[in-house]
Amino acid sequence: MKYDTCITIFGGTGDLTFRKLLPALYTMSRTRKLPARSKILLIGRRDYDTASYTALARDWIRRFSRLPYSEESFADFAGHLEYYRMDFSDGTAYEGLGQAYEALQAASHIFYLAVAPRFFSVIAAGLKTISNLKEGKIIIEKPFGETLSSAKELNQQLESCFGPENIYRIDHYLGKEMIRNIQTIRFSNPVFANAWNGEMIEAVEISALEDVGVENRGGYYDASGALKDMVQNHLFQILSILAMERPGAFTSEEMHARQLEVLRALKPVAPEDLEQSLILGQYDGYRSEPLVSPESGTETYACMRLFIDNDRWNGTPFYIRTGKRTGLRETEVSVIFRRPDPETEPDILLIKIQPTEGIYLRFNIKRPGDSEEVVTASMDFCQNCILENQVNTPEAYERLLTACIEGERSWFSQWDQIEISWNYIEQLKLLAASRNLPLHPYLPGTRGPREAETLLNTFGHHWLE
Amino acid sequence: MKYDTCITIFGGTGDLTFRKLLPALYTMSRTRKLPARSKILLIGRRDYDTASYTALARDWIRRFSRLPYSEESFADFAGHLEYYRMDFSDGTAYEGLGQAYEALQAASHIFYLAVAPRFFSVIAAGLKTISNLKEGKIIIEKPFGETLSSAKELNQQLESCFGPENIYRIDHYLGKEMIRNIQTIRFSNPVFANAWNGEMIEAVEISALEDVGVENRGGYYDASGALKDMVQNHLFQILSILAMERPGAFTSEEMHARQLEVLRALKPVAPEDLEQSLILGQYDGYRSEPLVSPESGTETYACMRLFIDNDRWNGTPFYIRTGKRTGLRETEVSVIFRRPDPETEPDILLIKIQPTEGIYLRFNIKRPGDSEEVVTASMDFCQNCILENQVNTPEAYERLLTACIEGERSWFSQWDQIEISWNYIEQLKLLAASRNLPLHPYLPGTRGPREAETLLNTFGHHWLE
Repeated sequence: MKYDTCITIFGGTGDLTFRKLLPALYTMSRTRKLPARSKILLIGRRDYDTASYTALARDWIRRFSRLPYSEESFADFAGHLEYYRMDFSDGTAYEGLGQAYEALQAASHIFYLAVAPRFFSVIAAGLKTISNLKEGKIIIEKPFGETLSSAKELNQQLESCFGPENIYRIDHYLGKEMIRNIQTIRFSNPVFANAWNGEMIEAVEISALEDVGVENRGGYYDASGALKDMVQNHLFQILSILAMERPGAFTSEEMHARQLEVLRALKPVAPEDLEQSLILGQYDGYRSEPLVSPESGTETYACMRLFIDNDRWNGTPFYIRTGKRTGLRETEVSVIFRRPDPETEPDILLIKIQPTEGIYLRFNIKRPGDSEEVVTASMDFCQNCILENQVNTPEAYERLLTACIEGERSWFSQWDQIEISWNYIEQLKLLAASRNLPLHPYLPGTRGPREAETLLNTFGHHWLE
Repeated sequence: MKYDTCITIFGGTGDLTFRKLLPALYTMSRTRKLPARSKILLIGRRDYDTASYTALARDWIRRFSRLPYSEESFADFAGHLEYYRMDFSDGTAYEGLGQAYEALQAASHIFYLAVAPRFFSVIAAGLKTISNLKEGKIIIEKPFGETLSSAKELNQQLESCFGPENIYRIDHYLGKEMIRNIQTIRFSNPVFANAWNGEMIEAVEISALEDVGVENRGGYYDASGALKDMVQNHLFQILSILAMERPGAFTSEEMHARQLEVLRALKPVAPEDLEQSLILGQYDGYRSEPLVSPESGTETYACMRLFIDNDRWNGTPFYIRTGKRTGLRETEVSVIFRRPDPETEPDILLIKIQPTEGIYLRFNIKRPGDSEEVVTASMDFCQNCILENQVNTPEAYERLLTACIEGERSWFSQWDQIEISWNYIEQLKLLAASRNLPLHPYLPGTRGPREAETLLNTFGHHWLE
């Protein structure tokens, strides 16, 4: 074998490749995360050869590399690159690709589908025709399809070509430091582990606010909306890690199985509870955004009140909110412990996910001085503050590519989780449509429609910030 | 009635009065904590009159007052002062004092015995002869006697003269902010309240280190030693607040009853366990300190391993250490939670009592970055840091005098607690003497004898700093 690994990128001249994948691979080459004997095959329709493509790649890497650019290390990296011109939507083109692979003699393959989902199946089918491919992993990013049924079909096709264990679905949230940290915080600390149930926890809030609007993604976003774009994948991922039972072992399989149980136990919203379970909003001006329909009924904000139907969480609401143009970029989880008496404020464990990473505990102390009054104080462990100069947190794509090379599946989302989440959201959207759930307008720069706050207030809670 | 309160200080020309009591009373007058209609009667043998005493008091207050001195407010304060010349060890002198009280017509009395304990009984007996004294409270400071039996006798005398509810025994540690805060931290925070038992807590450490030696108190200290000077009062107080059951109500009576139960449940050290329960030390050079016997066998350091014999704490060691010349001034409590597995570090709740006040939680997180390793991080709520400019924490004596005026007994120690603690320590000292427990030398500036560290290590622990 001439190479240990061949990484093929379909969409080699696309934005994702230039802005993220090449800079990440360049850094991995500098930090020796890229196997020394690896080939990076970039597939595109455009008329480059390896030399001209390399020159172009150099400019992008110079601009976007996390580590300072150096000619020497780029020369090193460039040795891995090879441009392969091909129309990947043409099934007959794969014979030639097969011959190229034959010449490369790689012990294993990674195929990064940096293309729109409508090309997934032709690429899968094409690769399938290449007879002597060794172990091959497929990396795809969301959207995995336009509807659940189309996504299901694509998935079946990919899985039947490569085997379910070889499909790596990127969920960027899974790579976030503090999300990966939730399980450690929960299970490695007796003070939290012991109190992690509905008897001790009054409510959980998961909030993912964005300051930006839809920007240049209006076309995609208008067909999807906040529920599909954020809730069914990222926020349900966080929810399931927060709520899962303790895994017997911390393997990706066990974790996955426990998370899946949570998603299965998510209580479907009954028609009569809809108004107390879901608030949708749309920011003023959204319909004038580029590529957005002028009559769009797409939600740019969603707030949910959910319950998990098992012994651990019986009666504890999980509040979720996400929205665009909310005047704040902040993803965080608040675990609100039951108050010892109605006069005392609850203990709150706050896990900050982005842009700041950190953990924060609000607790009760006696007011210092003469008074016997109980007031809240807080302890703050700001991870970004303390560690940013000590730890060179790898960028998301470096991590994901490395995890894929190493076959570490815990960094990727599993199809059954996606399917069950997607189905839950689809049912809820159907219910909302059938009951004409209002779409509340809100001013850009505010935290979304007032009704979301009112929903929580009704049950004695409020959105924490 | 001309006055609401008359505060009589026996020992009106002593150090305690000049350095602490007068400056405290002055501040209380400025902050309106001193009742407007109150008289401060200073009793001494020296030849002053109120005018000359006031002039002297002015100098001391100027030097030691917490708030900036001002002529105007001193003039205000001076109106309360009256010097009364008298030999308080002369029983016949009390008739005259009675006449003075008659003239003052105060609705209530506070007697501060700022004198050596050998004068307690003559003063009590003398006051008893004054027929028409209204409500009278007695404030005394430790030492309450030289031996338990002499202290018991003194106490009986004081209690029979004034009633047990009118004896206010000062324990300065009880006024410390963070000690008063322990109950709030324990009971008002579900994350801690729920984990506050031996099933969840592996060990508790109470450490009160002093950097200073015996200074000018060699005579007193040499007759007492670390166990009597620190452990039996201050550290057993802290222990009992840490370990008590939840009071039905947070009244001083209920608290007191629950603390007493803890002290009663302290497991006596069996002779065969002595070496694993008590380490005594003496710093090199102690025997050359002024007023210390050159052959002194007094301990200046003690380390203990104690158990509380009840369901909550069965099997959890309480480690106590205190010492002089340890290179560090620091009183703190560490609550060490059981580790989830042998590889993971325990969660630790650290309560800093002095000189820094604060709360600190050490907990486990995933090491940021690629690794899945679990490492410890900490959250720090430094109370002094955050609040010192917001809250003018009253000095100890202002608090104590105010609490006495208001009849707030929770700031004072109860006789039965003192007796039971004293008895425990006396028994232990007898056992140590009978078994010739070694007195380990240690170098000034070190944390005490190495054997104290070894003791904890034997049981898988170590002194935290």
